Amino acid sequence: MKKEENFSEWYNEIVEQAGLTDKRYPVKGMNVWPAYGWKVMRHIDTFIREELDATGHDEVCFPLLIPETEFKKEKDHIKGFDAEVYWVTHAGLNELDIRLLLRPTSETAMYPMFSLWIRSHGDLPLKVYQLVNTFRYETKQTRSFIRVREIHFFESHTCHESESDAQGQIEEDFVILENIMKRLALPYLLLCRTEWDKFPGAYYTVGIDTYMPSGRSLQLGSIHHYRENFSRPFDIKYEDVEGNQKYVHQTTFGMSERLIGAVVGVHGDDKGLVLPPDIAPIQAIIVPIIAKGNLEEILESARHLADDLKAAGIRVQVDDSDERPGAKFYKWELKGVPLRLELGGRDIANEVVSYARRDISEKGTFSRKNVAESVSTLLAVISDDMRDKARERMDSSITTIDSLDNIPEKWLRFGWCGTEECGKEIEEAADIKILGSPYDKEEFDGKCLACGKDTNIVVYAARAM
Amino acid sequence: MKKEENFSEWYNEIVEQAGLTDKRYPVKGMNVWPAYGWKVMRHIDTFIREELDATGHDEVCFPLLIPETEFKKEKDHIKGFDAEVYWVTHAGLNELDIRLLLRPTSETAMYPMFSLWIRSHGDLPLKVYQLVNTFRYETKQTRSFIRVREIHFFESHTCHESESDAQGQIEEDFVILENIMKRLALPYLLLCRTEWDKFPGAYYTVGIDTYMPSGRSLQLGSIHHYRENFSRPFDIKYEDVEGNQKYVHQTTFGMSERLIGAVVGVHGDDKGLVLPPDIAPIQAIIVPIIAKGNLEEILESARHLADDLKAAGIRVQVDDSDERPGAKFYKWELKGVPLRLELGGRDIANEVVSYARRDISEKGTFSRKNVAESVSTLLAVISDDMRDKARERMDSSITTIDSLDNIPEKWLRFGWCGTEECGKEIEEAADIKILGSPYDKEEFDGKCLACGKDTNIVVYAARAM
Repeated sequence: MKKEENFSEWYNEIVEQAGLTDKRYPVKGMNVWPAYGWKVMRHIDTFIREELDATGHDEVCFPLLIPETEFKKEKDHIKGFDAEVYWVTHAGLNELDIRLLLRPTSETAMYPMFSLWIRSHGDLPLKVYQLVNTFRYETKQTRSFIRVREIHFFESHTCHESESDAQGQIEEDFVILENIMKRLALPYLLLCRTEWDKFPGAYYTVGIDTYMPSGRSLQLGSIHHYRENFSRPFDIKYEDVEGNQKYVHQTTFGMSERLIGAVVGVHGDDKGLVLPPDIAPIQAIIVPIIAKGNLEEILESARHLADDLKAAGIRVQVDDSDERPGAKFYKWELKGVPLRLELGGRDIANEVVSYARRDISEKGTFSRKNVAESVSTLLAVISDDMRDKARERMDSSITTIDSLDNIPEKWLRFGWCGTEECGKEIEEAADIKILGSPYDKEEFDGKCLACGKDTNIVVYAARAM
Repeated sequence: MKKEENFSEWYNEIVEQAGLTDKRYPVKGMNVWPAYGWKVMRHIDTFIREELDATGHDEVCFPLLIPETEFKKEKDHIKGFDAEVYWVTHAGLNELDIRLLLRPTSETAMYPMFSLWIRSHGDLPLKVYQLVNTFRYETKQTRSFIRVREIHFFESHTCHESESDAQGQIEEDFVILENIMKRLALPYLLLCRTEWDKFPGAYYTVGIDTYMPSGRSLQLGSIHHYRENFSRPFDIKYEDVEGNQKYVHQTTFGMSERLIGAVVGVHGDDKGLVLPPDIAPIQAIIVPIIAKGNLEEILESARHLADDLKAAGIRVQVDDSDERPGAKFYKWELKGVPLRLELGGRDIANEVVSYARRDISEKGTFSRKNVAESVSTLLAVISDDMRDKARERMDSSITTIDSLDNIPEKWLRFGWCGTEECGKEIEEAADIKILGSPYDKEEFDGKCLACGKDTNIVVYAARAM
């Protein structure tokens, strides 16, 4: 499994061998979450909940099935999803009067209820989110976590009195996002999508993109400002302080299990996964190094060590299986455990614990006495180092170009006049996708890659995974 | 809202007014979980996870959609669900080659994978569970939490080497069940379902039934022994120590959001919900009693009180809204908050906190100094008292009868010869459902209610919700 030689093959093998997913389920693009993979996802979900709860969002849960009649209320929206939804047409032995679709996203499930929930300015802002699975009939080749047909994701939906209040929500979303991405040690860019690529029904869309070692971009999620685009067709109105009826301004923010796909792709290596400590189901694996005659002593010592680490809140496991140490090293490296602790007769005699980092080939020893503190500190260092390394790799991959000739397989940065004509010309000529211009404006003084006109607009582009 | 006069109407009103559910979603039988109701459900989910994790079950997540071909592998199973499943027939603009159904339960989703996962006795026991939503096209009248079409539930599935190992799992399930039900302060009976009422494909089914104040029974979940009934059609085999290929023995255990329905029905009163402290989103509500001029002092004191309680792990909230105390009392009683704390000028002067219990009309004061400890202790007492009261009510409702005349609207207990003929005759004559004979055998020496023959079999029966 060589990541550099064939990223795609490496990725497909590693996710299954490490136990993140099982692709043998008999429906294409719908995979099973085995215990290990689901634990990683649940750690991510926990961070999402922490961040959203702390910013005053309420967790709710809306039905999966949406009536066709509601779905069709926002015209652009239905057009965007027409080819991608699953239709429930029969229940039991009956054909349904109104077809139901499996949520591809929950605007049209939630907004009829918002229109009942919101009466006055006192009900605003309304901030809710849910963590559910969503369904899209992908016609492109599927890939675990990255392009699947049943997708685990969160979606937050908010309603506000004004466009600027909604804008304030989007700024808050950026802070939430940064806190979550820190835990995953993932760098990203916030890019304002082009008009022809924004979410169906959105006023504007900010894509959250990361850079994959294959040279491609991966969209991890998005943040949308809807203005009144949905509140008008769904009649979500409030009475303002002067007694006037007004439409709310809405935003949404969502990210999916693609976060795991990014973690695998960005951090993994030829030995397998490298999991950021915050989402690793096992943060430290203890491998007893048994010599003849000292089995019981070593195992007991390993269990004490585990107890001390557990007491400090570290997720630790002792591998007391019959396999040889080398096989154990191989297994836990494949599964991406951030830290391996080894305990043999000599370690015990010297009152130390040997360690090996997963992210870099560093080995050393801790004093047994303060081991819990040392492990916690090192896990934090590993997390920071992983983040820095990934950020540097992403930054160094960004290549500013001023011509369509010899385009490298990198993240590209170039001038664009802003017209759809030139944008699409560039996309077609270079077989890339324009991801958009940075949300935090970058100073730029150059020329449009297509028409050559002077422009201040700079955009990022890449081939998509 | 009088619970005694019209239980059904009372129930339907209370669940919505208290914020547990919103029934206005435009698909019948599919309700929205607003924040308050979802919090209650998530507390229950947390207990389920704790219990299943502690007994060595792994949480997994299987796809929602099951191919018709897999579903049809176990003949009894498909017959049992034929009229109740939702069918996905189209995706995007295409008709699917193989229809997909929304899981009514996950045997047929999981077992094709189990057959890949299990190779040898070393892989056994396999114990997994998932917390997901399931779908059944109910044709009877729907009722929040009790009979809905999208159902939140957990299902654990286990595979074992032998029938007796599987039997051991069922004994473990009873311990798990007891621990969960303690938190909910819910009494229940374990009743072995009749042959004609057992789960489609099961060897035997134990129903978990509770008694509703309406005089009806409510099935909260069930535990099944499948023997080899599924492992044969799904080819789930293992190699035993002697190298022989054998079929695994399987069990399942599941309970649904009906647990909330039972909590509402069993504990609630004319004022609204009465939530067991362990699942109450707010365990103590602090109502500041403001007199003129002391607003700031009282509010500050209330916030300090809340901080002290939070530090002790108590879920507490200060109601600092502009409403009058009476309106606040009414609101939090409706929502079932177990304990109300009042804080006025006199309380502060006397260094006490006044309290009122939700479950009984007891009021008193705590010393401000040890208030966190006092609140914790009282919440535990409330939980125990609620459980005892509910258990007594259930026990006293069980009525042993020896004739089909003048059958009361209670839980009935009577002799039955064990034949399907007599069983169905009794069910029809009395318009009741035989729930089954107690899993823990009860000494009995009587006559069959239908044919009059001597019998040692005693069964429980009631009208179902």
